[in-house]
This record gives sequence, C-alpha cells and structure tokens, in this order.
Amino acid sequence: MQSSPLLENLVEHLRCLPGVGPKSAQRMAYHLLQRDRSGGMNLARALTEAMSKIGHCSYCRTFTEEEICNICDNPRRQQSGLLCVVEMPADIQAIEQTGQFSGRYFVLMGHLSPLDGIGPREIGLDLLQQRLQSEQFNEVILATNPTIEGDATANYIAEICQQQGIKASRIAHGIPVGGELEMVDGTTLTHSFLGRREL
Amino acid sequence: MQSSPLLENLVEHLRCLPGVGPKSAQRMAYHLLQRDRSGGMNLARALTEAMSKIGHCSYCRTFTEEEICNICDNPRRQQSGLLCVVEMPADIQAIEQTGQFSGRYFVLMGHLSPLDGIGPREIGLDLLQQRLQSEQFNEVILATNPTIEGDATANYIAEICQQQGIKASRIAHGIPVGGELEMVDGTTLTHSFLGRREL
Repeated sequence: MQSSPLLENLVEHLRCLPGVGPKSAQRMAYHLLQRDRSGGMNLARALTEAMSKIGHCSYCRTFTEEEICNICDNPRRQQSGLLCVVEMPADIQAIEQTGQFSGRYFVLMGHLSPLDGIGPREIGLDLLQQRLQSEQFNEVILATNPTIEGDATANYIAEICQQQGIKASRIAHGIPVGGELEMVDGTTLTHSFLGRREL
Repeated sequence: MQSSPLLENLVEHLRCLPGVGPKSAQRMAYHLLQRDRSGGMNLARALTEAMSKIGHCSYCRTFTEEEICNICDNPRRQQSGLLCVVEMPADIQAIEQTGQFSGRYFVLMGHLSPLDGIGPREIGLDLLQQRLQSEQFNEVILATNPTIEGDATANYIAEICQQQGIKASRIAHGIPVGGELEMVDGTTLTHSFLGRREL
C-alpha cells in the first residue's frame, strides 16, 4: 500500500519507459520527489512539448518539429547526390556520429513485413519513389539493418532504383573492427569472406 | 547532430532519472515518439501532478498529497502503540510488504550527518519528540539502515526515548534468509553471533 495515490500513479506511468520495471520506477519516483523536483517538472514539460510537437520531415520522414528537417534543408547536403535509406531515426544519429556521410537520408520507420501488414506503402516507398523521380541522385546507399527483413527491404528498394536507372549499394557486412575472429558467428564470417577486398 | 531540438531537449531531461545515461535516454525518447506518444503524455501529466502536489504528512513526514497520510489516519493503526522510525518513505513500502507491522511510522528523510550539516532538527527529531510526548507509544522500533550513520541515528533516538520512559528497540542484524554463511561479511556474521536466540 502506497501512502499516496499520486505517487502510485507516477510509478505506474514511469513504467511506459523501455527497460523500466516496478523497482526502477519506484526508485525514479522517490529520487525525483526527494532530490530533483525541478528536474521532474522540466522533464514533464520536455515530454509534453516533444510528444505534441514532433512530427515527421516531409522529405525524409525523420523526427522533426519543422516541416523539413535541418539535414534535408541543408544546401551543402543537397549537392552530394547521395541518399542513405535507414530503418529508424536513431540510425541517422549513429551514421552522423561517424562523420563519413555528407548526403541526405530517407527513413522507412520500419521494414517490409508482409505478415504484419507492413507493405511498401507503410514504409513510405511511394514517397521515396517520388523523391527519386523529382530529384537528382547519383547513388542510393541501403543502410537497413543486417537482418532478414532488413535485407529483403534493401533488395526491394534496389529494384526500384534499377528501374529508375539509379545506382544502389548496400553497406558492407563483415567482422566488427576490434572483434575477434573466433567469436564471430558463421554467417557474418561468410559475408566477410564473400565481401573481401583486394589490398 | 540531432534533427530536432525538442528531441534533443527531451533526451537531455530524461537523464535526470537515476540510472539513465545518454544511450538509454535516447532509446527512451525514440521509443515514446515511435510507439507510445499517449504514454509519454500521461507520464508528463503524472510527473507534473506528483511534483507539484505531493508534500509531507504532518505526522510522519512521508510523501502524501493529503495533510495526513492514510497510515497515520487509520484508527486501527493508532491502537497498536507502536512507532517505527525509518530513514526514507521507500522503507515504509518495504516494511508494509512484509505485512508484519501494524503500527505507525516516522520518516526521518535522511540520517544524522553532522559533517554535512544534517543535525537532529533537519531529520525532524523535534517533531518526533513532540509526538512521543503528545501520544501514547508502548515501543519505538528503530529501523534505520544498518550503516554507521543509521546506527548513530538509532542510538541518538533511543536516548530520546529513554528520557521519556518509552521502550526503544533496534531491528535485528544478521545473515539474510537464504544467504550462504561463507558469502556473508565478517561484521554481519559477528552481529549474527551476538544476536543469537535460544531455541
């Protein structure tokens, strides 16, 4: 029995966060009440603003509160003629951190999964096709996840690109840098051999 | 570079939660945006309500949005004549779950720590002394943590009880049930021997 229904309510709602179980939720609630009430209020405001105002970029479908995100809107990004297709907005974050890519993105917000009713339209391939027709792209880099669904989605998009006469490429699979050969699974090692490069 | 300042802001504020680093905060923000916007809004409301409305019970100092918490307000609880002194509201939760205690509580919201400027007044011992004088208690159970500070605080309160002629007791230290003897530290094992009971 909690001594406060509001506290009980807060603990329950904290559990909507991924990886937060009943014990962590309770610890978080007590921490905020005891030590950081202003932090809790700021978090509430940040949540309200983000949940109500963040939508999708009308060009690349990533999260943004603007009509067009600041990557799509950047003229220097538009010059490269490169388009990178990813599954999730978080993937953009990861690629941006490498500093190796200077083109624009397209976010599928998922992958093809016919059994779950997720077809080409659900992952925005009609919008992608429009963009490929209306803009000049030299290459489409397919950076979907290295899973069966991600590979299938990449192959599907590669066919669309071929029809439009645009070069499509898939990011390399292989052993992670710093990994040990004996720890790597067989499929990855096979990919690593098939994708070997001359030195 | 995030594509959205509001998203960046949300990730930053999620880090005020204990145990949430930059990666988890990002994962939480994306999860809410992608899959559970209504959950995020509800969490924001729960946070706002809890942070602004929850105060302390004027009898026992635990968290409550009422003037008096529902444990202090319970007439059956008042009959037992037992008062359990704990450091934190979360401790009440843990004791309530055992179902072994039917008295009332007093929450210190910390422990004596003169070096940090936390003296008897800061942990509400003046309020405790008032309660001991104005109400009839048969026994005060000191359930502060088994740390040096917790023990010191318990001893200090035991002296106050003695002055008022009220019996004070300390919860038992010993090996945890289900624990293995060889894994238990020396201090705990010493306490366990000193506190042995005849069968």
